[in-house]
Amino acid sequence: MSIDYLSLAVSEVQQLAPYVPGKAIEELERETGLPADEIIKLASNESPLRANPHVISAIQSAAAQITRYPDGNGFLLKRKLAEKFGLDPEGITLGNGSNDLLIMVAQAFLRSGRNAVMSQYAFSVYASATTAVGATVCEVPAKEYGNDLDGMLSAIDEQTRVVFIANPNNPTGTWFDRDRFESFMDKVPRETIVVLDEAYIEYADDPSLPNGLHYLRRYPNLIVCRSLCKAYGLAGLRAGYSASSPQLADILNRVRQPFNVNSLALAAACAALDDEAYLDVGRQINREGLHQLQDGLSRLGLSWIPSRTNFVTVDFDGPAGPVYEALLAKGIIVRPLAGYDMPNHLRISVGLGPENRRFLEALTQVLGRGEHA
Amino acid sequence: MSIDYLSLAVSEVQQLAPYVPGKAIEELERETGLPADEIIKLASNESPLRANPHVISAIQSAAAQITRYPDGNGFLLKRKLAEKFGLDPEGITLGNGSNDLLIMVAQAFLRSGRNAVMSQYAFSVYASATTAVGATVCEVPAKEYGNDLDGMLSAIDEQTRVVFIANPNNPTGTWFDRDRFESFMDKVPRETIVVLDEAYIEYADDPSLPNGLHYLRRYPNLIVCRSLCKAYGLAGLRAGYSASSPQLADILNRVRQPFNVNSLALAAACAALDDEAYLDVGRQINREGLHQLQDGLSRLGLSWIPSRTNFVTVDFDGPAGPVYEALLAKGIIVRPLAGYDMPNHLRISVGLGPENRRFLEALTQVLGRGEHA
Repeated sequence: MSIDYLSLAVSEVQQLAPYVPGKAIEELERETGLPADEIIKLASNESPLRANPHVISAIQSAAAQITRYPDGNGFLLKRKLAEKFGLDPEGITLGNGSNDLLIMVAQAFLRSGRNAVMSQYAFSVYASATTAVGATVCEVPAKEYGNDLDGMLSAIDEQTRVVFIANPNNPTGTWFDRDRFESFMDKVPRETIVVLDEAYIEYADDPSLPNGLHYLRRYPNLIVCRSLCKAYGLAGLRAGYSASSPQLADILNRVRQPFNVNSLALAAACAALDDEAYLDVGRQINREGLHQLQDGLSRLGLSWIPSRTNFVTVDFDGPAGPVYEALLAKGIIVRPLAGYDMPNHLRISVGLGPENRRFLEALTQVLGRGEHA
Repeated sequence: MSIDYLSLAVSEVQQLAPYVPGKAIEELERETGLPADEIIKLASNESPLRANPHVISAIQSAAAQITRYPDGNGFLLKRKLAEKFGLDPEGITLGNGSNDLLIMVAQAFLRSGRNAVMSQYAFSVYASATTAVGATVCEVPAKEYGNDLDGMLSAIDEQTRVVFIANPNNPTGTWFDRDRFESFMDKVPRETIVVLDEAYIEYADDPSLPNGLHYLRRYPNLIVCRSLCKAYGLAGLRAGYSASSPQLADILNRVRQPFNVNSLALAAACAALDDEAYLDVGRQINREGLHQLQDGLSRLGLSWIPSRTNFVTVDFDGPAGPVYEALLAKGIIVRPLAGYDMPNHLRISVGLGPENRRFLEALTQVLGRGEHA
């Protein structure tokens, strides 16, 4: 007799669907036979720059030591982060991507009988991490595709232990300013942990956005999550960190896997943090590319959600699935958002100028609006 | 009023103590001022060989792609593992070290009201992963420092969902043979998942030990965990995998972090699996080093636990802490086992010949038994 092992798994895991990442270039290559160098991926909000040569050098130097375990405490990386951002190293927690940190928060503070408040159209890992530990997802309707902080405040109840907010927000690109953030934080009960996900903050290019790291002393219930996967160009290496009070960091470190960030990621992160010039170039290219995409989309008569990130989310005013598929056939990978209950939208990561142009040309053909191009 | 956030964490996390890794060379360097090249680390069962040049080349090639997310499905590495070991790729789950896989099993199958059976002197992550999800640790007394499989069988009850066994066992080095394994597996209820941790199997050097991968069809409740951190020399990169039925792999993949193994670890793992020669050299050096250590320890009148691994666990017949500290002062890092309730033992990883000799010389001085050396 064969046994259904899924029925023996814990009930919350039975409800979990695996995360669906953006399609990889190699995957499309295998599926379509298109050569990899003719495929453009604008699907995962990665940096379109070449890998940072200083980071590659740091990896080469560190590679000689791969037979040894990583420093489980990440001493050097924490010291670097502390110096660069004026942080207490005891308040830093390192993650295998900021994803890892979101999961640590859920494991530390959420369980059956507790809930986490988050916005409609929030990053899907907030909900999956909450569900995976048996807690309840309390989703608050978005306001113009962004976090409705007042609505989220009203949703906090006795069972709420965590609120997840993102600024700017993925997958919509929306943002809130300092005043709205402070007014929100001032009213959140101090017993409720607020996770401020700043994975895209380096691209924000708008001084009205709060810098979460400046609020750690004022709000002891704040955990700011940052990623080196986007603007710093380390998506392949999975390096993220959170900053909080040392007490909250101690709690996260209890559930952290002892060697969650590997040796080469630690070395690469240190080198990446040292190179402001790479960050500046990336921001400049992103600024230009975002305008290029937004202009081109507008010329095609498409509306898009204003964005302070390295992507733009486009409304096709009808099912976007066929557009996604038609772009794939032309070797262009973007991100469908049906899983976010946004079946009419696609999310387009900002690429290099020629990539953005090729995307716009392909989209023009797909939509049969050649006359507007 | 300041808030005690630990009291707001889930109760199981309040009980968790952070994992204590072997002391890093850099840490001892910072603490003592001894230069790094005079420090020998025999504490974390790492390979003493230099990093594999083929692996370093693979890392260098892959480094150009670090701005892109890793392949979350690990297509190439799974295909390589499937070919090399005759496995179904659908039954493979990739882990950020085998540690990650142990935690996935706990997250998928254990919760409050359920228990996991494990041996006294088992790898500490079995218990911490079980505790972290609110399940109960059911510890069975060891038999001659090894897994008492009959005792573990008797301990399985209605609430048992998982049994953790390791072959060979860390931190004691003990092992069981094929007959004992089969007789155990034949009697374990099919509803109980058996995790067979084979992190050290490549060093076992004894054909009487079962190869877990050969039993996947016979035992649908079996999950074999393997690591590339030891004999394959990738401790710094955190690469592990499990093999099981596709159904069990599907369940583990639901709780797996989407990009848990980073790009350079994936590339390095593929290259390491291709190089049997590196593995053979490592095994040969380990065989010689293990004898060298065991002989030397015996000559010092010390007794040690027979081992089929790359370490030997020594009984000092009295508190081993002062010996550990005295060795540290001489620049030699070994592993204290007080956390395993073995305060009289130290675990010594097999190093290169000259490292083992320096350890034995230092130990001779520390014990004041120069006359026996």
